Amino acid sequence: MIRISKTAGGMTSSAIREILKITQRPEVISFAGGLPAPELFPIDEIKAAADRILTDHGRQALQYSTTEGHLPLRQWIAEQNKITPDMVQITSGSQQGLDLLGRVLIDPGDVVLVESPTYLGALQAFKPYAPRFVEVVTDDDGIVPDALDDQLRTLDASLLYTIPTFQNPTGRTLSPARRQALLEITQRHGVTIIEDGPYNELRFRGDEAETIFESARRQTASDELNVIMLGTFSKVLAPGLRDAWVQGPRHVIDKLVQAKQGADLHSPTLNQMIIAELVDDVLPRQIKIIRETYGRRAAIMIDAVSAELPEGVECTDPDGGMFCWVTLPDETIDTEPMLAEAVQHNVAYVPGKPFYATDTRTNTLRLSYVTSTQEQIRTGIAALGRVIAERLSSAAPARP
Amino acid sequence: MIRISKTAGGMTSSAIREILKITQRPEVISFAGGLPAPELFPIDEIKAAADRILTDHGRQALQYSTTEGHLPLRQWIAEQNKITPDMVQITSGSQQGLDLLGRVLIDPGDVVLVESPTYLGALQAFKPYAPRFVEVVTDDDGIVPDALDDQLRTLDASLLYTIPTFQNPTGRTLSPARRQALLEITQRHGVTIIEDGPYNELRFRGDEAETIFESARRQTASDELNVIMLGTFSKVLAPGLRDAWVQGPRHVIDKLVQAKQGADLHSPTLNQMIIAELVDDVLPRQIKIIRETYGRRAAIMIDAVSAELPEGVECTDPDGGMFCWVTLPDETIDTEPMLAEAVQHNVAYVPGKPFYATDTRTNTLRLSYVTSTQEQIRTGIAALGRVIAERLSSAAPARP
Repeated sequence: MIRISKTAGGMTSSAIREILKITQRPEVISFAGGLPAPELFPIDEIKAAADRILTDHGRQALQYSTTEGHLPLRQWIAEQNKITPDMVQITSGSQQGLDLLGRVLIDPGDVVLVESPTYLGALQAFKPYAPRFVEVVTDDDGIVPDALDDQLRTLDASLLYTIPTFQNPTGRTLSPARRQALLEITQRHGVTIIEDGPYNELRFRGDEAETIFESARRQTASDELNVIMLGTFSKVLAPGLRDAWVQGPRHVIDKLVQAKQGADLHSPTLNQMIIAELVDDVLPRQIKIIRETYGRRAAIMIDAVSAELPEGVECTDPDGGMFCWVTLPDETIDTEPMLAEAVQHNVAYVPGKPFYATDTRTNTLRLSYVTSTQEQIRTGIAALGRVIAERLSSAAPARP
Repeated sequence: MIRISKTAGGMTSSAIREILKITQRPEVISFAGGLPAPELFPIDEIKAAADRILTDHGRQALQYSTTEGHLPLRQWIAEQNKITPDMVQITSGSQQGLDLLGRVLIDPGDVVLVESPTYLGALQAFKPYAPRFVEVVTDDDGIVPDALDDQLRTLDASLLYTIPTFQNPTGRTLSPARRQALLEITQRHGVTIIEDGPYNELRFRGDEAETIFESARRQTASDELNVIMLGTFSKVLAPGLRDAWVQGPRHVIDKLVQAKQGADLHSPTLNQMIIAELVDDVLPRQIKIIRETYGRRAAIMIDAVSAELPEGVECTDPDGGMFCWVTLPDETIDTEPMLAEAVQHNVAYVPGKPFYATDTRTNTLRLSYVTSTQEQIRTGIAALGRVIAERLSSAAPARP
């Protein structure tokens, strides 16, 4: 029997995959997905773009291409972010960006700071490079800068991974003042920030916040930047095309190019050319439609949560993105086994546990509001309310 | 300045990338590429397939999908290879298959046996997993089984990486008897074979040879297989779509799925659906056209090489695939610096050195015959003949 390597031997089937399987049962109202709303995909525009590209540039679109990615797409990304195209590497989804960054930046044993909770796909991407994850103190406004500063006095950390805008899984957004503080603290302690920005464009309430990358770029020479940012077209155009990017200082991008060459040579040419055709006209229109739709669905879910979930249950109230985060009042409740009951009541969510790098908290769960109709949200949250109420009452201490 | 990890710090810009840059200058006749002939791409058929898929299954084609890959495509691959779909993992090009196999099968220090020379992309894919490469003795018919058996008496090797059919870079093919011997020897010594088969379908002369995987499958229970095979649609349909696969025992595929999930979640859905639309009708037609075209171009190149290259220069005479391999009679000649002269004469090739894992030979080079016209092949090989003749005469010992 073929022997598996020691690292790979430890890999186990992941929560994400099992979740994707549950969501495929049609009778279940699923708030578990991290999928964008497919009815909003610009299918006709993508079809027209594919047709034009294959008609006019078929050989180029179907041939091997450069590892860095399709130049017109990199140029567009560079313009948007006021950087140069050699500071942009196209990746096959942000997941690949995280993997390649792990490869290029993490040595075994390096301390990687993460939010508590954080995106579980990032934990999974970094794990093969054997970092030591340390959770940063967070509150309702995200990472607490003073607490981070305290931690860094005694901790030799190399990286901080953060999703400052409409975080996955909590929906929380870091305030502008805290962003500035984070930048100042990490620069002072020599820590690199990996800023993951998949939801940046999905704001449906409040004022735009400048990305940490953008603040750093205004204040620092390109080569001295301590921030690397990930962006993606998955949430604003279509995830199935697998097009995303990493932007950062040139010497990091150079290493990413080399790492990507070993990993998969380059991302599909046709797909990058399709995206490049859509960024000027279709993308701004899509962003507008997605913001309106997600904002409406978020409001319905927050209303339903207030009305239907038992007293004492807390839920975040995001200004954008795809998720809200529920905390149950009884810390002994485990939302993992509770999921089986929920599915029996035809509603699904993601248990919070896999989103914690080290915390062992079990009484949280993630809800996505973006792929359900108004009626589904009301029915599903009501069902979830009954499941939670049942748990809370059976977990309550028995009276004599 | 952001600190690069120790492994990534050692990465250097690769030969493949520099080569791709040379081939882009229009005045250079390039035999350097590993690119398939783009005028043979079934552009109209791909356009029609993309249109049908986006019309009928747009939401599915543009949404996130499963890590294992598009089921109908995995089913087709499984049928072709007389295995089950759970023995197939779709990858973004064979390069990703090699990377994921490195991740799943190689522990630091493991001995990985490779042909001498071998595919440099495989060396690059495996390197981050820190194996020790050991070259296997090869002759004009590929790996020499008796020599391998001898090596394995004293060497604790875990993997053998081989391209038995129309090898890259040499164009050599391992005989059926040697395939059987290789299987028997590796099974006896507990070595896993990674059989890379990107050119399997591109035979233009002689009889089909059974793959090592197929022999093993006939003789061994699925779980006890010691062969993993890589296949790809890059050479028979279009590389820019980035669709390939790994087939092997289920417990290895399970680990590959987990590794791929961390690496990029899944390969693009639309691209896999396009390929699945083409495999029944378009693919067999393409294979026929490609075989005829490449066979014709190979014959012209082999003729030109005999006529134009100086006496003593040796060249392989492949039965299929994309490459032939040239050895210069003077071992002191280095084809790397000679490339600059060749490019001045408007002809390009790939120097042989990066294809050797440990051998330090410098007097070899790789030629691709598939992207050049008859006239280009004649002109380019004549120019190469002059460059080599010049080198041979200047390298000859000075007479008193």
